[in-house]
Amino acid sequence: MVLSREDAVVLDAADPLSPIRDLFEIAAGDLVYLDGNSLGRLPRATPGRLDDFVRREWGAELVRGWSSWMELPTTVGDLIGEHLLGAAPGQVVVSDSTTVNLFKLASAAAAARPGRRVLVTDDDNFPTDRYVLEGLAASAGLELRILHADIDEGLSTEELTAGVDDDTALVVLSHVAYRSGALLDMKAVTSLVQDRGALLLWDLCHAAGAVPIDLDGSGVDLAVGCGYKYLNGGPGAPSFLYVRRDLQPELVSPIWGWFAQRDQFAMGPTFQPHPDVRRFLAGTIPVAGLVALEEGVRPLAQAGIAALRAKGAALTSLIIELHDAWLAELGFRLATPRAADRRGSHVSLEHPDAWRICRALIERRGVIPDFRGPDRLRLGPAPAYTRFVDVWDALDRIRQVVLTREFEEVSDELPAVT
Amino acid sequence: MVLSREDAVVLDAADPLSPIRDLFEIAAGDLVYLDGNSLGRLPRATPGRLDDFVRREWGAELVRGWSSWMELPTTVGDLIGEHLLGAAPGQVVVSDSTTVNLFKLASAAAAARPGRRVLVTDDDNFPTDRYVLEGLAASAGLELRILHADIDEGLSTEELTAGVDDDTALVVLSHVAYRSGALLDMKAVTSLVQDRGALLLWDLCHAAGAVPIDLDGSGVDLAVGCGYKYLNGGPGAPSFLYVRRDLQPELVSPIWGWFAQRDQFAMGPTFQPHPDVRRFLAGTIPVAGLVALEEGVRPLAQAGIAALRAKGAALTSLIIELHDAWLAELGFRLATPRAADRRGSHVSLEHPDAWRICRALIERRGVIPDFRGPDRLRLGPAPAYTRFVDVWDALDRIRQVVLTREFEEVSDELPAVT
Repeated sequence: MVLSREDAVVLDAADPLSPIRDLFEIAAGDLVYLDGNSLGRLPRATPGRLDDFVRREWGAELVRGWSSWMELPTTVGDLIGEHLLGAAPGQVVVSDSTTVNLFKLASAAAAARPGRRVLVTDDDNFPTDRYVLEGLAASAGLELRILHADIDEGLSTEELTAGVDDDTALVVLSHVAYRSGALLDMKAVTSLVQDRGALLLWDLCHAAGAVPIDLDGSGVDLAVGCGYKYLNGGPGAPSFLYVRRDLQPELVSPIWGWFAQRDQFAMGPTFQPHPDVRRFLAGTIPVAGLVALEEGVRPLAQAGIAALRAKGAALTSLIIELHDAWLAELGFRLATPRAADRRGSHVSLEHPDAWRICRALIERRGVIPDFRGPDRLRLGPAPAYTRFVDVWDALDRIRQVVLTREFEEVSDELPAVT
Repeated sequence: MVLSREDAVVLDAADPLSPIRDLFEIAAGDLVYLDGNSLGRLPRATPGRLDDFVRREWGAELVRGWSSWMELPTTVGDLIGEHLLGAAPGQVVVSDSTTVNLFKLASAAAAARPGRRVLVTDDDNFPTDRYVLEGLAASAGLELRILHADIDEGLSTEELTAGVDDDTALVVLSHVAYRSGALLDMKAVTSLVQDRGALLLWDLCHAAGAVPIDLDGSGVDLAVGCGYKYLNGGPGAPSFLYVRRDLQPELVSPIWGWFAQRDQFAMGPTFQPHPDVRRFLAGTIPVAGLVALEEGVRPLAQAGIAALRAKGAALTSLIIELHDAWLAELGFRLATPRAADRRGSHVSLEHPDAWRICRALIERRGVIPDFRGPDRLRLGPAPAYTRFVDVWDALDRIRQVVLTREFEEVSDELPAVT
């Protein structure tokens, strides 16, 4: 039974997360934004917090501000760890980009399994994950084994089982696939990999803030994730990384920077890594980015990940229901797992004209989806602020754009959106 | 002849850079800030620019903002290159921390000289430079040769000549020493190192914005530098890196990230580095940091590096003159080259109680200097906004704090200031 628009409005009125939406800057009559999994919206508290940071902490306190800024990588890390990752304090730090954090952890992990010569990932993993591992394999003389993952359904247990062996040092997988949204079973996959003696590094970019994660409870080794998607830290926000406590002493970052130094301000002659997870910091921390990220995470902490997950599942289920009713007959095909417990909080729809449909929605219909090659329209409703009526309107406008062939009027120039 | 305070006021009134000071947020009766070489002051334009970025570019444009943000690493890099580095466009990019950029360039350089097994730096170089090279040597099986530099006068030509040979792959040196301020002759040192077939990487953290730099004219290979000192980008601002155009094709970053990929949004199966300097980007760029850094550099571009250098030389000369007149007899010793053309824009004064004197100035006298071990008071007047009267007041208060033994009343707890 397909909802009417009025039914969607009723669902929003009953939504326990509607007060969370009010924590974000959303203009009246604003566009339908279904790309919060690429760049999260601006929290209302962020401009004021940043302005206070800039004028008072930097402008007036000047260099004295460092006495509090020094704590930000761990306090923001622990905030994310507690509310979104199931990680006890002292295992998460925030700084640098996801790419740099991935490089640090993957390099350290490969070096910690010196007898093993294979790094493993899958061909549907996000490009920077694949490229970082390709570079690491090249420089360290290792083999990169790229498993085949279905671009709709994700990596199968069979493929993973066959691809990880006694020569595997490290496996890098995305918990939620960036294109299809396919969700892996963190605990089962972690056990499977660890049983073969390899380390596992989870990329949580499309998972953190969208699905419940229990790093400690799942016995996870390593993880990295993004600050600017569901975590609302702003474009290029710093990234978080997790190193399980008992692994910390044995893993050493390849980048021996002064913020990773045990007694940093002694400025001693040789590098002595921090005993704790701060050994995976590197250079001077990006303070403005950390401050903004802290504000970005607060609405999620207030909402609770269970409520966010329930809402995300309902929103993506509505997308699929409306797809089945309206879009399947217009040449679309669902390119995301149909079972809610097998996907994250975004849905991809395959269509041969996906790119021009995406452009037409942005340029003419006030809807911002995302495009992912080769022919996918990716819809990412962020549970913290996307309404049921937003999904209804978006799917209705997709239907209109295709029914009227309006998309044929826009350029087919290629994309440049992250 | 020692100036009176009135003489200093007269010098300020005649200072052609006094309009540049007005471009910074400095409260009336504000403290005497002599640590702009650790954290530059807040430009007046920055809060408004950041607020516009946050509310309009991020909050309203959302993911569409990337169409302009993508250019920031090169446009901000070229701005710094043109006004402060003597670098033609296309050779400087901004992203990541100084430490990460140093790691990327040093790793690439070592890999580009595969027959040579020695990395060279000096024992007075900034800790993160030494640590990064120590880590690189350990992981790549290379030797790190640490030359001895005088902590007052810097690295001698004799020591450098003896320390660089046919087995040297890379030399990493600071153009201006972080503690003493000793300035190396960029062109002469570059030639000396290149004549032996090694690559040279300049750390410009304490030089950029303080002294004229002609990277292209000096034939420099590689350089990195800091965005949060004289460049006023705010705490943890992103760092710049320079790769000479003809070297770009042969050098490959160790971090194969998606922002270094030639055709980034094709998201292809293998890493193909950008043909230009963007191959040394890594992960998603820190947009807020780039925006703030652009505003931080503008006042310097307006002032011109020649005027900044002249003012910096005059300010540091005044420090030395007042030291000679007042402080030498109180147990201080000049720990910086006396000749203006052999130092950058900061001066270190040795005193056995330097740490407590530093704390007393900050806590009781409204002066912010910096402390550098083992026993140095470091005074960094930033030419863009420090006045002659600020220097006069600071030296006068240092004299008072020592004459009255006021410093004996403060804690001798150890420092935690960057």
